[in-house]
Amino acid sequence: MTQFLGLDDFILAALREDVGTGDITTLSTVAEDATSNGLFIAKENGVVAGLFVLPRVFALLDGNVKIKLLAEEGARVQKGDVIAEISGTSRAILTGERVALNILQHLSGIATQTAKAVAAVKDSKTRIVDTRKTTPGMRELEKYAVRAGGGANHRFGLSDGVLIKDNHIKTAGGITAAVAAARSAAPHTLKIEVECETPEQVAEALDARADIIMLDNMTTAQMTAAVAQIADRALIEASGNMGDRDLAEVAATGVDFISIGGLTHSVRALDISLKF
Amino acid sequence: MTQFLGLDDFILAALREDVGTGDITTLSTVAEDATSNGLFIAKENGVVAGLFVLPRVFALLDGNVKIKLLAEEGARVQKGDVIAEISGTSRAILTGERVALNILQHLSGIATQTAKAVAAVKDSKTRIVDTRKTTPGMRELEKYAVRAGGGANHRFGLSDGVLIKDNHIKTAGGITAAVAAARSAAPHTLKIEVECETPEQVAEALDARADIIMLDNMTTAQMTAAVAQIADRALIEASGNMGDRDLAEVAATGVDFISIGGLTHSVRALDISLKF
Amino acid sequence: MTQFLGLDDFILAALREDVGTGDITTLSTVAEDATSNGLFIAKENGVVAGLFVLPRVFALLDGNVKIKLLAEEGARVQKGDVIAEISGTSRAILTGERVALNILQHLSGIATQTAKAVAAVKDSKTRIVDTRKTTPGMRELEKYAVRAGGGANHRFGLSDGVLIKDNHIKTAGGITAAVAAARSAAPHTLKIEVECETPEQVAEALDARADIIMLDNMTTAQMTAAVAQIADRALIEASGNMGDRDLAEVAATGVDFISIGGLTHSVRALDISLKF
Amino acid sequence: MTQFLGLDDFILAALREDVGTGDITTLSTVAEDATSNGLFIAKENGVVAGLFVLPRVFALLDGNVKIKLLAEEGARVQKGDVIAEISGTSRAILTGERVALNILQHLSGIATQTAKAVAAVKDSKTRIVDTRKTTPGMRELEKYAVRAGGGANHRFGLSDGVLIKDNHIKTAGGITAAVAAARSAAPHTLKIEVECETPEQVAEALDARADIIMLDNMTTAQMTAAVAQIADRALIEASGNMGDRDLAEVAATGVDFISIGGLTHSVRALDISLKF
Amino acid sequence: MTQFLGLDDFILAALREDVGTGDITTLSTVAEDATSNGLFIAKENGVVAGLFVLPRVFALLDGNVKIKLLAEEGARVQKGDVIAEISGTSRAILTGERVALNILQHLSGIATQTAKAVAAVKDSKTRIVDTRKTTPGMRELEKYAVRAGGGANHRFGLSDGVLIKDNHIKTAGGITAAVAAARSAAPHTLKIEVECETPEQVAEALDARADIIMLDNMTTAQMTAAVAQIADRALIEASGNMGDRDLAEVAATGVDFISIGGLTHSVRALDISLKF
Amino acid sequence: MTQFLGLDDFILAALREDVGTGDITTLSTVAEDATSNGLFIAKENGVVAGLFVLPRVFALLDGNVKIKLLAEEGARVQKGDVIAEISGTSRAILTGERVALNILQHLSGIATQTAKAVAAVKDSKTRIVDTRKTTPGMRELEKYAVRAGGGANHRFGLSDGVLIKDNHIKTAGGITAAVAAARSAAPHTLKIEVECETPEQVAEALDARADIIMLDNMTTAQMTAAVAQIADRALIEASGNMGDRDLAEVAATGVDFISIGGLTHSVRALDISLKF
Repeated sequence: MTQFLGLDDFILAALREDVGTGDITTLSTVAEDATSNGLFIAKENGVVAGLFVLPRVFALLDGNVKIKLLAEEGARVQKGDVIAEISGTSRAILTGERVALNILQHLSGIATQTAKAVAAVKDSKTRIVDTRKTTPGMRELEKYAVRAGGGANHRFGLSDGVLIKDNHIKTAGGITAAVAAARSAAPHTLKIEVECETPEQVAEALDARADIIMLDNMTTAQMTAAVAQIADRALIEASGNMGDRDLAEVAATGVDFISIGGLTHSVRALDISLKF
Repeated sequence: MTQFLGLDDFILAALREDVGTGDITTLSTVAEDATSNGLFIAKENGVVAGLFVLPRVFALLDGNVKIKLLAEEGARVQKGDVIAEISGTSRAILTGERVALNILQHLSGIATQTAKAVAAVKDSKTRIVDTRKTTPGMRELEKYAVRAGGGANHRFGLSDGVLIKDNHIKTAGGITAAVAAARSAAPHTLKIEVECETPEQVAEALDARADIIMLDNMTTAQMTAAVAQIADRALIEASGNMGDRDLAEVAATGVDFISIGGLTHSVRALDISLKF
Repeated sequence: MTQFLGLDDFILAALREDVGTGDITTLSTVAEDATSNGLFIAKENGVVAGLFVLPRVFALLDGNVKIKLLAEEGARVQKGDVIAEISGTSRAILTGERVALNILQHLSGIATQTAKAVAAVKDSKTRIVDTRKTTPGMRELEKYAVRAGGGANHRFGLSDGVLIKDNHIKTAGGITAAVAAARSAAPHTLKIEVECETPEQVAEALDARADIIMLDNMTTAQMTAAVAQIADRALIEASGNMGDRDLAEVAATGVDFISIGGLTHSVRALDISLKF
Repeated sequence: MTQFLGLDDFILAALREDVGTGDITTLSTVAEDATSNGLFIAKENGVVAGLFVLPRVFALLDGNVKIKLLAEEGARVQKGDVIAEISGTSRAILTGERVALNILQHLSGIATQTAKAVAAVKDSKTRIVDTRKTTPGMRELEKYAVRAGGGANHRFGLSDGVLIKDNHIKTAGGITAAVAAARSAAPHTLKIEVECETPEQVAEALDARADIIMLDNMTTAQMTAAVAQIADRALIEASGNMGDRDLAEVAATGVDFISIGGLTHSVRALDISLKF
Repeated sequence: MTQFLGLDDFILAALREDVGTGDITTLSTVAEDATSNGLFIAKENGVVAGLFVLPRVFALLDGNVKIKLLAEEGARVQKGDVIAEISGTSRAILTGERVALNILQHLSGIATQTAKAVAAVKDSKTRIVDTRKTTPGMRELEKYAVRAGGGANHRFGLSDGVLIKDNHIKTAGGITAAVAAARSAAPHTLKIEVECETPEQVAEALDARADIIMLDNMTTAQMTAAVAQIADRALIEASGNMGDRDLAEVAATGVDFISIGGLTHSVRALDISLKF
Repeated sequence: MTQFLGLDDFILAALREDVGTGDITTLSTVAEDATSNGLFIAKENGVVAGLFVLPRVFALLDGNVKIKLLAEEGARVQKGDVIAEISGTSRAILTGERVALNILQHLSGIATQTAKAVAAVKDSKTRIVDTRKTTPGMRELEKYAVRAGGGANHRFGLSDGVLIKDNHIKTAGGITAAVAAARSAAPHTLKIEVECETPEQVAEALDARADIIMLDNMTTAQMTAAVAQIADRALIEASGNMGDRDLAEVAATGVDFISIGGLTHSVRALDISLKF
């Protein structure tokens, strides 16, 4: 579901950040050959994502830890559900626990709030998408978690999508010029999206043959009007503090996508614990 | 206030994650020699932290961007306050904007919710401290943001503090044995903390001469009793879903520290924007 | 023109590869305080690209080397033209010379052969584009050199473009299914390209609403027919050993793009030397 | 045949450069559990080198891909020959294909043109050697490919050989002084080579007891005379645009080595493809 | 006994430093399929530490080398004792030998001289501890070797212990102010140590409730007096050129710890060789 | 004198190892704007090497520290000599002090004991050279320190010199075969050295035209005989526990080089301190 080639490096960095020069509590109080069994348990309802990090965290510490995953990626879990079993070297389990949970709870938190947004628009064709408002170093995993929660991904960064915003428009001398410049310089494999705030801008973007039009900070009524104006000549994305809006209402305007920064910039970790 | 030797590496990694093979929108629509001025503006009330990343983000992209910081670290800002001015190469400003804001909003979010917790206990001697429930790769910055918000830091990781938890106690054969083992193996510069859930455990930890006793998931009444039982023979930390508790009430029990995982694991970004 | 955030790291790695534990010839025969002047001279006609690496190579060795660039990026140079002047610490100039030339000659070689291909189609609307057949570690610079030579870039890698090839088609169960699967899973900011070898495949791709159709290994006549069949309903890319074809003839079929792997996989370095 | 300790890092960097945030075409159109078989086939005659990278490329993507190599390193292959078989996870095969071929075709291109040069001098004692005119980041692999093609290696970089060129001679105050300085400062395990353009320089280098004399940009007649002058008192290397010379004629002058920059700076990739 | 997460990276860096572009002697004179057996033998009496690096050194070069360890970590060995057996690919054994021995001899040298110091104080309660005077890049391994030799560790670095020295005292305006400042800013999990040179300083440190008092460069008589003055109100560490002192005499003063920089800054490698 | 391109990376790694998450003592007790002056003072007689690291250590911590070097590299210093002055931000000086001294004292220790060995053979033509018995990660700096102390460098690693030892001889089937194999495979820029223990081996090495003969573990009389036997037909290196031998006596045998592992594997740090 993901091809994050840097996953082990990411986990190892997290382990080094936490373990430092050694987990002295565990090294001093737990015998080298002690073994333990434990359960990863959901302590509240939600959607899990990132369970694949569990085996890697412990493998990077010690070869003798076994993980059995009991939930699918993107599955809804209830408070009390066992989502994974762990057994093996006690020291490795105790030392890796926090890093494993920090990643798993964060990704599951994203999946959970994405699933909530997706559910809100389930009676429409509208898709919930993420933004570039992610945690430094975690974008690939966080965007994965959005997919696990049922959302879709917007561009991953500045090089795999053209999104002409107000400041670009100003500098380029208008939407028409900006779209032309982008079409000439960007790879032909990328669509061109233009941020619009008024019907006039929408009209100009359509004339310039923009592939996607972003309706920025519009009221529901404005969006409804813009959808009619665009009339299937471009894809339509609703944007701007969408985390605070009634998503069903926005979806009802007929936009194709609603992008929500809060999916990744304001994450409430899903409560999960490891019980021996 | 911080000596994060990896700051530039951290920012550069964030820039690479976002910029990828180039910000094609900006490169195609904005002239190489264009310059711009902009303002970083708070869009809601809060406490700012991490403004020092702004000059570094843009310096790593281009030598010709100037930043003037208008708020102190840890300062309270109101909606509409200008917290920094930026001027220079338009391309660098547009390309670096998102990374700069992603870091600044996250750290300011932590400082804001820490300040809220600190305010709740302001009439007591109790200090608000963080935990190891941080975002992978950001612990040093996140713990800095807790300090900026008026909180204090618990240990940074597994090697700069001894914290004997229930699983260590089980494996070591009891609190007495665990404390003795830790005292014998850990550097003498570190205090020894023991997690306790009952008065009997508190008594055993005191007999073992633990330096710090953590009261885990206790009611207010249980904490009040434990504080009396300990009678200044050890420092006392209250822990366990403290994010959901009435902090003033907990502080009133007389504990020295309240540790709150939510300060860093469930962060609501402070809304800040860059306006040209 | 490029935002290669890893440029210094790339150059430093190249320097380490060449300098090893020290340039013993220079260290033993050239005094530490000796200074020199030199000229970078084209020894054959061509197009230069990558001159911006010169200042960085020597800056990474020593702060006391000055470079004056005398040619624009993408400029045509004649045998004998001076393209840059260098002056400063003799040791740094002698030690960095080879690395500087290795990069500059390679990128200029790419720009030169790209310019040749672009010239061949200059009387058409057709654009010359590159491929993913690049040198490991140099893609961003090589694709830059293609642009410097007048060409355009195809996608940079597997994540910023959807290109459905024969093997994908087989596995997905046909073009229709493959395009539908890609549209559902890929970010909406990316176009979808389908590789076609027959008129039937072209027809199916059009029905599936592919954004771009690649005509693979077709004769000129086949391409002419395909262009007519497509009738502006999709962008058209000609591909398959195009380095050995008469490009003007291919362009005359009306395709939008001709992609040529040889631009980057079979590079003849442009002969440039440093003369004291 | 090689001890390139950085091979996996090199391949992983190449994969990250190509895969970016994920091969979206393959991830969306190919099922996770699909498997495929394929053949690596030479599409023209040549000499193969670097087959050992194939197993590593796919192992770094997925544990379930098997490679069976059907050609020896340095073997001549004919158009149509199968040089390796691959089977396993379809996704990994499709995602890794381009990186694997980019490396293999480049190294085989070097081996092929080296073999051509070696064949040209096969009736002499003369050896074909490479130079430092290599692709940044690939020197160790490229010099390996030269050996696979039957050539020999000159020094790998500036620290494992002393080569006194005209600029060193000028700065040091003549050949005699330069050789003395190098002998005094360089490890005694390294030979000292001097670049000579005239009989007078050859004489001075011999007097200074140079171990190797490089004849730079000389005519065949000049080289013949120099070989006689040197009379076995030093090894002799012919250099200077040797890629454009009649190598048999140069070898017939009696030089020990002919160094050719073009072996590595102007590589024509050997055409190899992966067929399912 | 150690959780050095960077061990493989450390060893790989050491191998790259030694192997460079390949062990040409071994590659040219030893057949690829040759195998050998060898013994690691102590050539003098001492204490061994770091045997766990042996399997990793050779595993990183080649999968076909087996190591059988014949001594425990921290064991005393006599001249002539076999401490490990090795068998497998000759090339890997010959290429890795020097790096393996360089690490093993260094760590065993530290363990040996630590054991000597520990023996000198064996009739007291005093513990021998190390300092931050370690070799850059090797602190974690060197401090491990101190433990293997029977010593204990002082803090690992500047962030896991508070040690207020003369310069801090001056700047802070006295011991009282410095201790107060540290107590307020440092994590509550760390003890506070103060360096004292006079009885007055000791008195002030005790009043400030320092947890540990370091007696710096005191005579035996002065230390005896200080121990009496402190009267169990703080831990006591003797410091200052302790490597040149009569350790039994120092221990007899009643100090809790003697810290010795020479354990790690002036190491005499233990002579160990690999015999085929 | 050195071209250690990784110097800043090396120092930064050392700083990170020591500073960890921050120098809490200094941060809490020393004001951010405090400044200090200090002197680096030799506390015993010796030879200094590595002073160039001082400016880099503090520059990497803070831009506001100035260093004035008062001794040349390789200079003899007396106890009490001031070798450098430092002034600037107190926090940076205090935080960087230990890392700066750890490197400087180690390199100066090497230079000091090298100078002692060089002095012992000063009445001969014999040169003192180092070995590959160095500290992992520090070889380039340590070999520099040997040169600063008046010694010369042997090969830096396994790729810049051919040294055929007993185990290579055995595997290759004798000295003659081993030398022939090496001559055929190694770059022609490298000399070939053979380790010999008997007159018969010396004779065979001479017949094989070895460039350098190493006399391993021979008595003075045996070395004298071997020098006569070789009669200027090869360079001669004396080796084998030379650190314990009378170097003047060994030099008097007429060998060209004496290699001493102890110069780098058993280093006594030169005592240097920083006084405010």
